[in-house]
Amino acid sequence: MARSHKPEKPIAVPRLSIRLDLSQTARIGPGKIQLLEEIAKCGSISGGGRALKMSYRKAWELIEEMNQNLGLDVVETATGGPGGGGTQLTQAGKQIVYQYRSLEKDTASVAQAHIACFLKICKPK
Amino acid sequence: MARSHKPEKPIAVPRLSIRLDLSQTARIGPGKIQLLEEIAKCGSISGGGRALKMSYRKAWELIEEMNQNLGLDVVETATGGPGGGGTQLTQAGKQIVYQYRSLEKDTASVAQAHIACFLKICKPK
Repeated sequence: MARSHKPEKPIAVPRLSIRLDLSQTARIGPGKIQLLEEIAKCGSISGGGRALKMSYRKAWELIEEMNQNLGLDVVETATGGPGGGGTQLTQAGKQIVYQYRSLEKDTASVAQAHIACFLKICKPK
Repeated sequence: MARSHKPEKPIAVPRLSIRLDLSQTARIGPGKIQLLEEIAKCGSISGGGRALKMSYRKAWELIEEMNQNLGLDVVETATGGPGGGGTQLTQAGKQIVYQYRSLEKDTASVAQAHIACFLKICKPK
């Protein structure tokens, strides 16, 4: 299974992390979503991977895994034109990112009251 | 970092998985919570670990990690008595399990509408 990259900076805590299993193989988590966002910013799979300190091969494998398991193409490559080809998210790819970030926001909101309860029970170090 | 054990049976999908980082080191996820539940059922760390096909050493390390990072004891051992000593969850340990399962239930509920949207966007295999 693809593993998300470890953050280099300390994460902001308390924090809820989520992962969504749509089927036995179609898994969406923070690593894949961040890769899609970086590809959208950079206009290429290699640039997106580089931004996450990920090899081109690894980035390509994650994209291929999403295409296969989600049953759609998450990126598309334009050919020709003045600047040569570039890779962008497809409409479905953009919707996946939007929906994931929206789910993340809503679950984080629900988690707030629970986190307050946890912090009454324990004193995390 | 401690990793949760892979399920042997196919998981019921779609499913949202959660993990809570209360601090940089105090992480609570499904593996640790399941271990606490099994210890409560079996009355021992070794029995709880065995139920999850985990070595005693691994189970003990996870418990020690929780005690250290949550700043409290999650289990307590009774000494003596007719049946000898047994390990049970402390009050705080029980509260952690309850609070986590409650968080899991609430986030799963929030995720329902989002999952319906995902399933309109893609066709997971």
